[in-house]
Amino acid sequence: MDISTIAGLISGIVFIVVSIMMNGRLGLFFDAPSVMITIGGTFASVLISYPLNKFFNSLKSARLIFQTKEFNTGNVIQRIIDLANIARKEGLLALEEAAQSMEDKFLQKGILLIVDGTDPELVRNILETELAFIEGRHKEVQGFWETVASLGPAWGMIGTLIGLINMLDQLNDPSAIGPAMAVALVTTFYGSIVANFFANPVANKLKIRSSEEVLLKEVMIEGLLSIQAGENPRIIEEKLKAFLSPTLRDTVKENNEGETKAGE
Amino acid sequence: MDISTIAGLISGIVFIVVSIMMNGRLGLFFDAPSVMITIGGTFASVLISYPLNKFFNSLKSARLIFQTKEFNTGNVIQRIIDLANIARKEGLLALEEAAQSMEDKFLQKGILLIVDGTDPELVRNILETELAFIEGRHKEVQGFWETVASLGPAWGMIGTLIGLINMLDQLNDPSAIGPAMAVALVTTFYGSIVANFFANPVANKLKIRSSEEVLLKEVMIEGLLSIQAGENPRIIEEKLKAFLSPTLRDTVKENNEGETKAGE
Amino acid sequence: MDISTIAGLISGIVFIVVSIMMNGRLGLFFDAPSVMITIGGTFASVLISYPLNKFFNSLKSARLIFQTKEFNTGNVIQRIIDLANIARKEGLLALEEAAQSMEDKFLQKGILLIVDGTDPELVRNILETELAFIEGRHKEVQGFWETVASLGPAWGMIGTLIGLINMLDQLNDPSAIGPAMAVALVTTFYGSIVANFFANPVANKLKIRSSEEVLLKEVMIEGLLSIQAGENPRIIEEKLKAFLSPTLRDTVKENNEGETKAGE
Amino acid sequence: MDISTIAGLISGIVFIVVSIMMNGRLGLFFDAPSVMITIGGTFASVLISYPLNKFFNSLKSARLIFQTKEFNTGNVIQRIIDLANIARKEGLLALEEAAQSMEDKFLQKGILLIVDGTDPELVRNILETELAFIEGRHKEVQGFWETVASLGPAWGMIGTLIGLINMLDQLNDPSAIGPAMAVALVTTFYGSIVANFFANPVANKLKIRSSEEVLLKEVMIEGLLSIQAGENPRIIEEKLKAFLSPTLRDTVKENNEGETKAGE
Amino acid sequence: MDISTIAGLISGIVFIVVSIMMNGRLGLFFDAPSVMITIGGTFASVLISYPLNKFFNSLKSARLIFQTKEFNTGNVIQRIIDLANIARKEGLLALEEAAQSMEDKFLQKGILLIVDGTDPELVRNILETELAFIEGRHKEVQGFWETVASLGPAWGMIGTLIGLINMLDQLNDPSAIGPAMAVALVTTFYGSIVANFFANPVANKLKIRSSEEVLLKEVMIEGLLSIQAGENPRIIEEKLKAFLSPTLRDTVKENNEGETKAGE
Repeated sequence: MDISTIAGLISGIVFIVVSIMMNGRLGLFFDAPSVMITIGGTFASVLISYPLNKFFNSLKSARLIFQTKEFNTGNVIQRIIDLANIARKEGLLALEEAAQSMEDKFLQKGILLIVDGTDPELVRNILETELAFIEGRHKEVQGFWETVASLGPAWGMIGTLIGLINMLDQLNDPSAIGPAMAVALVTTFYGSIVANFFANPVANKLKIRSSEEVLLKEVMIEGLLSIQAGENPRIIEEKLKAFLSPTLRDTVKENNEGETKAGE
Repeated sequence: MDISTIAGLISGIVFIVVSIMMNGRLGLFFDAPSVMITIGGTFASVLISYPLNKFFNSLKSARLIFQTKEFNTGNVIQRIIDLANIARKEGLLALEEAAQSMEDKFLQKGILLIVDGTDPELVRNILETELAFIEGRHKEVQGFWETVASLGPAWGMIGTLIGLINMLDQLNDPSAIGPAMAVALVTTFYGSIVANFFANPVANKLKIRSSEEVLLKEVMIEGLLSIQAGENPRIIEEKLKAFLSPTLRDTVKENNEGETKAGE
Repeated sequence: MDISTIAGLISGIVFIVVSIMMNGRLGLFFDAPSVMITIGGTFASVLISYPLNKFFNSLKSARLIFQTKEFNTGNVIQRIIDLANIARKEGLLALEEAAQSMEDKFLQKGILLIVDGTDPELVRNILETELAFIEGRHKEVQGFWETVASLGPAWGMIGTLIGLINMLDQLNDPSAIGPAMAVALVTTFYGSIVANFFANPVANKLKIRSSEEVLLKEVMIEGLLSIQAGENPRIIEEKLKAFLSPTLRDTVKENNEGETKAGE
Repeated sequence: MDISTIAGLISGIVFIVVSIMMNGRLGLFFDAPSVMITIGGTFASVLISYPLNKFFNSLKSARLIFQTKEFNTGNVIQRIIDLANIARKEGLLALEEAAQSMEDKFLQKGILLIVDGTDPELVRNILETELAFIEGRHKEVQGFWETVASLGPAWGMIGTLIGLINMLDQLNDPSAIGPAMAVALVTTFYGSIVANFFANPVANKLKIRSSEEVLLKEVMIEGLLSIQAGENPRIIEEKLKAFLSPTLRDTVKENNEGETKAGE
Repeated sequence: MDISTIAGLISGIVFIVVSIMMNGRLGLFFDAPSVMITIGGTFASVLISYPLNKFFNSLKSARLIFQTKEFNTGNVIQRIIDLANIARKEGLLALEEAAQSMEDKFLQKGILLIVDGTDPELVRNILETELAFIEGRHKEVQGFWETVASLGPAWGMIGTLIGLINMLDQLNDPSAIGPAMAVALVTTFYGSIVANFFANPVANKLKIRSSEEVLLKEVMIEGLLSIQAGENPRIIEEKLKAFLSPTLRDTVKENNEGETKAGE
């Protein structure tokens, strides 16, 4: 459960609602036709922009902002050092068993390639191609939400223009001008909320999640190739810890002290 | 037939029309002079921006957003593994026959280069240059629609300025102000529709179609070079599947189980 | 003569004039002080932005949008295949005579370098450096017009601010407000025209012309190095045609059928 | 203590306060609900955009704009030349003692790697990976403040829209329009202050601090590898001084005159 | 003396002043509090953005837009060919004397490195690192003025918001509205002038000056390495002239005809 997403969504909604109710009435800001033209128009444009399967995949991706990743880089480094120790003591083939119980498909695939005796250059090639495509698919989903974030305010403005043009055309009753303009502006309000309270923050959190996953997989690739090259586990640890921030680095060090010494 | 394009266009038009008709009259939003200055002006600027042949080619490209690609990456990988099996069993020359019945010109050209015994480095060079230029031409067409998307609102604003200046100059009749401003704003409305409901979504869908085609051709190049190098079809499959998303990957695996085993 | 430039300029002017005259008077849109502050101010800022020689060179470059290039890629490929055939039959030195009658300075220089027996690496180095600088100079000129396109609307707004501030300061006569605001908005109108009907389209057409010329010269470099390496004219043709779009490719093929066969 | 940050913050606040008090009353610009919607909304969106740990780390980073770096490039170059002299006179192992008293963790780690006899390629690899991740973490923090800078004005506009819509809906009392609009605009004012007086300048100063630290560490990497390669201290000095601006370069020269001569 | 800078500044000021005086009074546009909030606020934010030394260095850099560079690429190429001839006739050591009288520090340093018999790879490394840092420092200064250009209009808008909010709060006297709004808009006017008439053009001219200097130094590096490699002066000339535009190229050719022939 991603606490910051929940906290941000709830506090943002509270701020908006309280802010509206201090000087006005909430009902004014719920307007079905305004929802239709802003949200409906935005998704009509997004539908033209994306094929149906990418459209639904990207929509579904929004739920990822509520999830936290199970794995962290420190654990992965620890796991790789364990594997390196196994490989040094019992040989590369002993890794096959360890791979069976592995929940991470990427790491598992890498180990199986090593166990198969695949050429190191080809192992790197296969894993890096796969990582590049994972990153590409992540970028596509982020791009989807950035498209939503740019189309939302645009359709908000289209809604406001429709409201304004209708109002200006019927300018005979001065007392109706205010409320009509108020309604016309509601779509601009919606468009701005869609972009700044939803689509852009979603794109941003997905981007950070993606960079964390890519970093993790880069650590895996470096580690796997070092294991295949038969490098000393202590050197592997030193190499992989360069991927960590200094604070995280110390936690790994403490856990490993015993094992890596034994594995030398 | 691309369903998302059709669904997006129809739903968007419905949303706009319903939104207008709830508080106003549709006729107000059809204004021939406004069409002329916004659409006409936009295309006048686009004509100055592009040579005539690129102008018409790019305009024609808009129809691509209604089409779905026939080929998918899974099929192409399957096809390449079949070719690899033929090459291993019957030699590279046996591919010439297979190339005859191939509908994809790029793959066909690659096979013929291999059959001719062209140097692998030159094969890669020729195919990658061709791919780079295909991508370049795609980018040019996307750029065309992005230019339209930036000029549309600009000419919408020029139309509104003309309307406003004319109205402000004749400010003697207060009752005429509203309707005159309404008409002046219609061009801004058109410009925003051109950019956000048409040109930008078209550019985006063309970009996605292009990236799918480029990916497909990258798979072809990798596969052709692996065939030429005489690699094991199972390794080729492993390499090419790194280009696929995990969900697509499994479908290929199932289809191949029998054949690739036989081809080893 | 570039037809699209002429057609764009004429149709754009017609659209603007007709659009103005339908509801207003053309004279209102010709205002000498507004021209002075928008166009004058823009060029004052551009003068500070660029040294005098680049300023005049870039201004002069605007006339290029009326010209069409004489050469096309197909012709250049044909020419290079002819040269390759000469080189194969009569030796590299025989190219010197062919170079004399060559109107393209870049191709001529390349041939003379080859005839002189310059090291292939150095030939590529000299020609690519020269191409990089040609591209750099083109980018500089495009940058000039993009600068004009961003300064035009800015000075249009400065003009409108001057008009608005003056008007607001003298708000005693209500009937003068409208016409004064109309005049104030004319500079915004000018700024938008400068950017969207002139400077941006000019920058765009120059960019396309430049990319065509760069492509042409890349073809020349590839071709010249292949000739120097003594490659088979048929292979050279295959390599160079990767630079062409499929439609253009077929026209080259037909013309060459006879000659290249003979040249093998 | 970073004087420019203090001077900028104080002078900016003085300018704003004086500017307000010359024609109005300061109280008008303190409005709790406006603070809530602008600042609260901005941070709600930022919370959705970032995981909790990055959110707090980035917030804390703002205090760095008040600190000045202790180290400067000149000192580091001097320090490295000293180390090079020690290494030449007493051997690489003599550096271990010097490393103990080193306060910079990065330089210390590098020296220990050298003393351990690690392969030069691996030393460069480990240190450059670490530097790349330091730079990555800095970029992330700058990105946080740039996100704040783009969300601030957006939520300022959302606040103003809420105020405008409420006001337009209750347009019965003309005398209330002015003050209501004044309050509505206060959120736009806040949003602009957040972006232009705080978040963007913070992001910019962090960027400059980061580039200085990265430069420093690049100098360290170059220097450490030169020491490991056993290069002449005078050559090392020449190489490292290329990283300095000409004015700083002279100060290093003077300090070194004696020592480097002796160290040759 | 850079004529275009002077001409641009003077003509721009004349255009603004004449434009104001045609319909209003110049005094209205001089408003001390408006200067304070726009210019003062901008520099307060810039002070937070940059450390004090970079702040003053960048401010001082503005005077460079009035200077023209003494050196031109043609001269430098001529100078390098002269040095190549000396080196060929009298040996590399003979360059030391020529270096003494050299006013360009970069060229001088390069020659001294060559004379010292430094390894060519190290010469290139030192000179390219130095060039990269020169370019980096230039970019930083351009970034300073681009920051000013983005903060100017932002603080102009902050000033206008302060004026508007104060005015709207005191909406009792209708006759005061106009003049108050006029004054409020003066800060927007200032902000636009700061960005479009000063900061952006300064950044642009500094960018062009920088690219000229970098080109010059790239020519020097290429030339120095060719001299060190003992290349034929005619080949050096051919290589370096690829850096020149065709028009400049001919002028070098004429000057050299005699000397280079003699130097072969």
